[in-house]
Amino acid sequence: MTIYRHFYVKSHAKTSPDINLKDLPGSAGRLDVLARSVNAAFWLSYGIRKNVVFHTILHGEPNAPVYIRLEGEKLRKVSPDERSIAIFIGKALKKFDEKHEAESTPGIFVARKSFEELLEENKDKKFYLLDENGEDIENVRINNPFFILGDNVDLLPEEKEIALKYGAKAVSIGKKSYLTSHCIAILNWWMDRNEG
Amino acid sequence: MTIYRHFYVKSHAKTSPDINLKDLPGSAGRLDVLARSVNAAFWLSYGIRKNVVFHTILHGEPNAPVYIRLEGEKLRKVSPDERSIAIFIGKALKKFDEKHEAESTPGIFVARKSFEELLEENKDKKFYLLDENGEDIENVRINNPFFILGDNVDLLPEEKEIALKYGAKAVSIGKKSYLTSHCIAILNWWMDRNEG
Repeated sequence: MTIYRHFYVKSHAKTSPDINLKDLPGSAGRLDVLARSVNAAFWLSYGIRKNVVFHTILHGEPNAPVYIRLEGEKLRKVSPDERSIAIFIGKALKKFDEKHEAESTPGIFVARKSFEELLEENKDKKFYLLDENGEDIENVRINNPFFILGDNVDLLPEEKEIALKYGAKAVSIGKKSYLTSHCIAILNWWMDRNEG
Repeated sequence: MTIYRHFYVKSHAKTSPDINLKDLPGSAGRLDVLARSVNAAFWLSYGIRKNVVFHTILHGEPNAPVYIRLEGEKLRKVSPDERSIAIFIGKALKKFDEKHEAESTPGIFVARKSFEELLEENKDKKFYLLDENGEDIENVRINNPFFILGDNVDLLPEEKEIALKYGAKAVSIGKKSYLTSHCIAILNWWMDRNEG
């Protein structure tokens, strides 16, 4: 049986499809951070991790919140570089439909969804909130995981409360504050080691 | 006393400064891989790692080999996204001088240098060759490290031989084949934990 790994990254990226690919860190709302997080979640040297599902909700102007999901089993055509991933996020934003979830390209889905709705839909999983002050990952038995991370900005207190309401466990990979994409690469590796 | 961490990534990036920023994975010779490796080597959430030195030798057309070094203590102006790092690699290539090492922007140096010359200059450090079949990192006491990694292509047998001649120890972070940038993020984290 496949054990899936879910990652959620809150994003402040803009929610209009006219992304300036020359300015992912600026006018696109740190879309570079989100793109590297997607890279870290899926890519291995010779292919992508089919057991990963990546969730994000974009909170930028003008149409927040926009939920986007990437499924490793179905993902096609995307390359691991920031620009390619940003282009595919743009395609998803273009296909956004207020009423229905749309599959913009193979394995990429877009919909209107709040953070609380997302957790409600995934409450069969175990939520882990990445937090420097959480329990050291070494002492945590990771099981059926749904990891919750911020982008370059920490989650809001009310978002952390929602996560805790859904039973999230605060876990730490160390006292240093790492980039979101590095956290994801480390978590994937850590789970590889402990499954192996 | 600061313990420095040296990373060397062999690159197949092109050695002319006219980089097409829209095509880092293609005509630039997987410059995206190198850029993400630089990101993984230096960036933390709130600043860059001053104890890191990143070395690369570009092997692409038309002027290989071009050696570039980034020093965390002096690095300025570069942002963590692929495009910004690629722009600064381009600036270094523009300042390349056959006769002398040049500092193209703060903390970035460029020169003519072969892999063997690089190892000769750094033989006071301990070389570690990343290799899936090497000794598990868990069993290795990392000390004064100079890590040697390939980009998306493995090192050549003759390069591995040079490394071994300089006493390199083959170390493994697992049986899966990880992206170079992920290896670096994991190694940094691993050393953080073991220093802490």
